[in-house]
Amino acid sequence: RVNGDRLWDMLMEMAKIGPGIAGGNNRQTLTDADAQGRSLFQTWCEEAGMTMGVDKMGTMFMTRPGTDPDALPVYVGSHLDTQPTGGKYDGVLGVLAALEIVRSMNDLGIKTKHPIVVTNWANEEGARFAPAMLASGVFAGVHSLDYAYGRQDPDGKTYGDELKRIGWLGDEEVGARKMHAYYEYHIEQGPILEAEEKQIGVVTHCQGLWWLEFTLIGREAHTGSTPMNLRVNAGLAMARIMEMVQTVAMDNQPGAVGGVGQVKFSPNSRNVLPGTVIFTVDIRTPDLAKLNAMRARIEKEAAAICEALGVGCSVEAVGHFDPVTFDPKLVDTVRKAAERLGYSHMNIISGAGHDACWAAKVAPATMIMCPCVGGLSHNEAEDISKDWATAGADVLLQAVLETAEI
Amino acid sequence: RVNGDRLWDMLMEMAKIGPGIAGGNNRQTLTDADAQGRSLFQTWCEEAGMTMGVDKMGTMFMTRPGTDPDALPVYVGSHLDTQPTGGKYDGVLGVLAALEIVRSMNDLGIKTKHPIVVTNWANEEGARFAPAMLASGVFAGVHSLDYAYGRQDPDGKTYGDELKRIGWLGDEEVGARKMHAYYEYHIEQGPILEAEEKQIGVVTHCQGLWWLEFTLIGREAHTGSTPMNLRVNAGLAMARIMEMVQTVAMDNQPGAVGGVGQVKFSPNSRNVLPGTVIFTVDIRTPDLAKLNAMRARIEKEAAAICEALGVGCSVEAVGHFDPVTFDPKLVDTVRKAAERLGYSHMNIISGAGHDACWAAKVAPATMIMCPCVGGLSHNEAEDISKDWATAGADVLLQAVLETAEI
Ligand SMILES: NC(=O)NCCC(=O)O
Ligand SMILES: NC(=O)NCCC(=O)O
Repeated sequence: RVNGDRLWDMLMEMAKIGPGIAGGNNRQTLTDADAQGRSLFQTWCEEAGMTMGVDKMGTMFMTRPGTDPDALPVYVGSHLDTQPTGGKYDGVLGVLAALEIVRSMNDLGIKTKHPIVVTNWANEEGARFAPAMLASGVFAGVHSLDYAYGRQDPDGKTYGDELKRIGWLGDEEVGARKMHAYYEYHIEQGPILEAEEKQIGVVTHCQGLWWLEFTLIGREAHTGSTPMNLRVNAGLAMARIMEMVQTVAMDNQPGAVGGVGQVKFSPNSRNVLPGTVIFTVDIRTPDLAKLNAMRARIEKEAAAICEALGVGCSVEAVGHFDPVTFDPKLVDTVRKAAERLGYSHMNIISGAGHDACWAAKVAPATMIMCPCVGGLSHNEAEDISKDWATAGADVLLQAVLETAEI
Repeated sequence: RVNGDRLWDMLMEMAKIGPGIAGGNNRQTLTDADAQGRSLFQTWCEEAGMTMGVDKMGTMFMTRPGTDPDALPVYVGSHLDTQPTGGKYDGVLGVLAALEIVRSMNDLGIKTKHPIVVTNWANEEGARFAPAMLASGVFAGVHSLDYAYGRQDPDGKTYGDELKRIGWLGDEEVGARKMHAYYEYHIEQGPILEAEEKQIGVVTHCQGLWWLEFTLIGREAHTGSTPMNLRVNAGLAMARIMEMVQTVAMDNQPGAVGGVGQVKFSPNSRNVLPGTVIFTVDIRTPDLAKLNAMRARIEKEAAAICEALGVGCSVEAVGHFDPVTFDPKLVDTVRKAAERLGYSHMNIISGAGHDACWAAKVAPATMIMCPCVGGLSHNEAEDISKDWATAGADVLLQAVLETAEI
């Protein structure tokens, strides 16, 4: 079993970097706070005897050697970046628990045949640079490096420039590493495990996603002196699309979601009807056919809504992954580890996207989840208990040891 | 008659200051560009023999003396500030036409009994600091100076601090001046005069306004892992309120408008349901009872929409004026001047708010309007012809001469 207190202490130490405004964190990708968090993590890993490799996306790979020089490593990781108003555990728990299992192995003098590589994937959140899981996506060959480098934050700064600026541009080719297996431990970010009173979520699938960025072109005009019948109202078109997305999601229950998190009005002045409205629709479901049908319906109905108002409408997919089925053998390894340790568990489908979803394209992969209070995440009030954190890390240790072979 | 070429040249000169991105202007209140525009205007006025007074709100009063030392001045003005993506004529035409009529009087050796004060009101647009017509509102005793100084721009900078920073904090008590009459010449900002092929709008009324700033509190949560039935979706509530505002405006046709120009999602991340949504509803109509009934209905229905979604809802009125009836005698003076000059004209109700609306509280006041292409304003593509500009300035000259008495 791991040292739960030590894991918790690391979580609290890391949370001091990039503090939020309400008890959480703002340690967005490639900010100075991200750089600071990376350095602290590097120090801890090196103290634990690991050596660092960094790839050209800025992903950190911290290696604990194995006993067999020919054996491929078992990768264990998640991400240290956060949402602008993120929690202390989303991603961070998975990275620091991976480090903790190495520290526990060190304490117990356990050696494994396969090396273990604790991994901090860059830009998982996709908050500053869309899409989410960018570095693992390049690693898995889903995106090109050029595409990733060109992604812009809201100020127009690019991923490539910011990676250089914070000093974390590595020299490894992205995706050159081969994996024996990939494990990721994460908080659930949803309400199911807590409601079902289970300690461990055995993650069998991850639902798929589309991020549809709509650009609506209206006619910038005075809110007071422009008669209703002369308006080309892009804001109203947005409102109707938002309601329609809600309807599409509800029509696809159970197991589908749809919503809007990001909106930009231009010029965004109280007495000017917006000339341009940009917003992103996020839809997800574990069923691939349903996911694509939802997308098609939303695009079709949005076009009709805009046409009726005379509003120009274009759509760009700025994020996407198909639903994922995790490796049955690794899933089974997780389930058996939970059982052996006496932890209550259930199968679960990940509602959020994770680096494991891309890793699954290039290696056997799976995830372990622990509950979080009220299912709340992407909120500074995100919370878990030390016991929950520890139980999942124990399962991670057992599963990794089994796969890495003692 | 005025010198239309000279007026046009001044308009083009002024438009060079604070250029926009699409042929218009961004010379927002109390920016460096605003300060530059003020200086140019000051120079021109002083060259025309006028002397300057500046009040504690930063409003500029340029005086051409009259022949009777006891006669109260006739004020003629508008504003030089613009929207972030504003046109070259909105406000600017009224200020520079007022200067042009003084230059014409100088050319013609005309003296008036009453002094003439060409006025540049500060913060008419209300884009950077709500509400609109802030300085004339303080002048008319509608707002306190403290209230005005405390108004914040989106970066949290206050009106008081920014006024000092740009060096245009004057020493005159705001509202200390007494007016014999107030005239304001402005582009229509709506489509009526052009459609009716009239050169001059004789402005009899101005419609009233409410700016209702809604703050909706939802629950910040993950867009992927938060099931539909657990969402407290402030963005969806906003969408429903926008549609409802549209319905309320349409139910009050003819002669009412309603829309939303400004929206802010927090944290505004693609995969986070917003915790807070702030947006401003702008409703207007010339009928006071209707205006207040629209407000009451919107607040009531918004509360019901939010309650159904579990979203917190509060409303602050950040801008307001009652419908205004302009001084019948001055209105008549304008109509007769247009007739005398042989310009086609019609009565019109101002769709936008103007400093004249507040001036009307403390003096006989009215306005003159000229057409603008397609009724377009608060848009960099805002356009007028030199002939239109000149015709209105001719009427302004005649009307002011009549009121100021030769
Ligand atoms: N785990 C997580 O919140 N990832 C961000 C990508 C997503 O929106 O699912
Ligand atoms: N004239 C003008 O656009 N004024 C701004 C205030 C308003 O929104 O009516």
